[in-house]
Amino acid sequence: MSASIRDIEGGLLAPKGWRVAAVCAHVKGSSGDKLDLGLLASETDCAAAGVFTQNKVAAAPVRWCRRHVPSSSIRAVIVNSGNANACTGEQGWRDAAEMASAAAALLGLEASQVLVASTGVIGVPLPMDRLRAGIKQLQLGAGGESFNDAIMTTDTRRKQASAAVTIGGHEVRVGGVAKGAGMIHPNMATMLCFITSDAAVDASVLPEAVKRAADRSFNMLTVDGDTSTNDTLLVLCNGAAGNPVVKAGTPEADLLEHAIETVALSLARQMAADGEGASKSLDVVVSGAASEADARAAARAVASSNLVKCAVYGNDPNWGRVMMALGNAGIELDEGRISLSINGQPMASGGVTTGFDPAAVSKAMNTEVVTIEVDLGLGSARATALGCDMTREYVTINADYTT
Amino acid sequence: MSASIRDIEGGLLAPKGWRVAAVCAHVKGSSGDKLDLGLLASETDCAAAGVFTQNKVAAAPVRWCRRHVPSSSIRAVIVNSGNANACTGEQGWRDAAEMASAAAALLGLEASQVLVASTGVIGVPLPMDRLRAGIKQLQLGAGGESFNDAIMTTDTRRKQASAAVTIGGHEVRVGGVAKGAGMIHPNMATMLCFITSDAAVDASVLPEAVKRAADRSFNMLTVDGDTSTNDTLLVLCNGAAGNPVVKAGTPEADLLEHAIETVALSLARQMAADGEGASKSLDVVVSGAASEADARAAARAVASSNLVKCAVYGNDPNWGRVMMALGNAGIELDEGRISLSINGQPMASGGVTTGFDPAAVSKAMNTEVVTIEVDLGLGSARATALGCDMTREYVTINADYTT
Repeated sequence: MSASIRDIEGGLLAPKGWRVAAVCAHVKGSSGDKLDLGLLASETDCAAAGVFTQNKVAAAPVRWCRRHVPSSSIRAVIVNSGNANACTGEQGWRDAAEMASAAAALLGLEASQVLVASTGVIGVPLPMDRLRAGIKQLQLGAGGESFNDAIMTTDTRRKQASAAVTIGGHEVRVGGVAKGAGMIHPNMATMLCFITSDAAVDASVLPEAVKRAADRSFNMLTVDGDTSTNDTLLVLCNGAAGNPVVKAGTPEADLLEHAIETVALSLARQMAADGEGASKSLDVVVSGAASEADARAAARAVASSNLVKCAVYGNDPNWGRVMMALGNAGIELDEGRISLSINGQPMASGGVTTGFDPAAVSKAMNTEVVTIEVDLGLGSARATALGCDMTREYVTINADYTT
Repeated sequence: MSASIRDIEGGLLAPKGWRVAAVCAHVKGSSGDKLDLGLLASETDCAAAGVFTQNKVAAAPVRWCRRHVPSSSIRAVIVNSGNANACTGEQGWRDAAEMASAAAALLGLEASQVLVASTGVIGVPLPMDRLRAGIKQLQLGAGGESFNDAIMTTDTRRKQASAAVTIGGHEVRVGGVAKGAGMIHPNMATMLCFITSDAAVDASVLPEAVKRAADRSFNMLTVDGDTSTNDTLLVLCNGAAGNPVVKAGTPEADLLEHAIETVALSLARQMAADGEGASKSLDVVVSGAASEADARAAARAVASSNLVKCAVYGNDPNWGRVMMALGNAGIELDEGRISLSINGQPMASGGVTTGFDPAAVSKAMNTEVVTIEVDLGLGSARATALGCDMTREYVTINADYTT
């Protein structure tokens, strides 16, 4: 099926019928001109679904989105960076609702048609005076990269992807942007991701399709083991492609899901590469597992171990740490059946060292993407987790974020 | 009851009837003279119990100890640092057994009376030639600090504690040493801890008493979220105090357990302060929880969050990260009831900011021990987790451990 997915340019604006705006609203009160308020809008109503943080402390905008999706009448998303509007109590809820109302007023919509997302410092009320003023200045028609810039916090680069498929003779496009570099862990993190499409799709198709796409992409990504209060993945399909409406349980629904997953996976890889302080990406490929759930748990345990991540940073062929992490994955293991390699260099077989040359393996680890392959020797299930190394710079970035 | 616990000097050798030996066996093959092989021996048989790693990948010496305790006839413990004898397959098991046999031969005992512990690099077979030679050189009668030195790896200082109680008119002493600075997480980590006592105690008292003491001390300690393959806590009571034998379910059993817990908690605090790269200790005190299990989960979630630990390092009054960590603790929360303070500075009440002065709180955080107090507002249960900050030095230490 992947053969039918085509790479295209354009990111968020690749699908038809989408426009964006972005301004500097000085959310953090600083004197610079960093864009920090973005608006994404469709010309027509959208089928929409989302996946949100599993943190018990959910930010107000997350609660707003949970209330309004799934839906078949979403038109826009308003997003600010610099302040997460989390741990802000009743005021936070009113502020999220007011962001939706103000954007809706600008566009001539109902507030319930506008979703809201925020990212940034937790526990500080939103500067609503500045946000109100900012929303009034938003003018649709800006370039996609300005929206991308407006949602970034500690990200060092933009993350966008887009893909096309053919459904009923019509080209259907999917595009997306994401932000997130820290507080990133399986089951989502301070990541915001907005995926647009011009697919015509029955709204009932999306919730499960989006959840599965997230499970195979963002939920296999880990940067620091901390899950944020604000994680939001929204998928919005406006029907502008003119394809026959995609119904649940059809091959076309599978194809659309696969296109969404392709965009999501590309964005997740870009987030791994831009992990806070990361100098390398880390792919952990676990095969030979008794079940896919076990494979996923094992891969994520290795990718999220601080000690493994430090070893990857230092080109340290310390395969024992991989074994230690596997042992903490909460799955059944037979240590004597485990084989593992790093960047293709066999290091352990049958649970014991292959007698590899440490200097040679260390040299082979000096790559932009380090791939740890583990065969559990128990079955045929496999999974890949995405992560990055842990560096001194990670600590530096996170030691003085608010002050 | 704590009033009856008396601080005493002497560490591991404070109780009667214990001796140690230590040599440099060049376990890592290096040319230095670091002590890396230690022997702890009682003059008479001991009641013994242990708590061991929950990692599914357990080192050979852990498997040896699990086979031989609980027991009422343990006489000695042989320990090496520099090599964990983990992920070493069948050969690893034979090597652990040979370490026990060789030490038993030296002391005129059965191998089953000698416990074994190892710590250091994982996945490398033990250098048995050097260990055999080293064991032959061991001579009991050395100072306690030499045994302490022999078990250290990345530790920067010795950790020892001792306490006394009166049981049946006799002074009963408990002493201990511990090593461990990284790979430390709730449910134990690369920590070795040996607690000696001269209590006369029925062997049936110890297993549960040791487990409870561990739950309230080492299992509330976290350094880096990684649980090692080699964690071992052994408690050995040789009866030399001459007290009436302590039986299960008596006040004397509670008193002995409390003395063991006191020593264990002191050692856990010393380990937190010496966490790899740590510049500060972190105490997280959670009160107002619905249950002790919830309090423990919440305290540990905060103490083990990388982002909280980085904020503590940088004197960053980022209380939102504490909320984020609480939300990931896997317990039920009511965000609107949570209050929290750092070093006595109130930062949040009813789930929202108190409007504190960030500069003042940042200044107040510049202490050797940072205490985060959280009141969940749901009940009366409480718990304390012990940890440390995360520093650039942590990454440096762990980026090139083996090479």
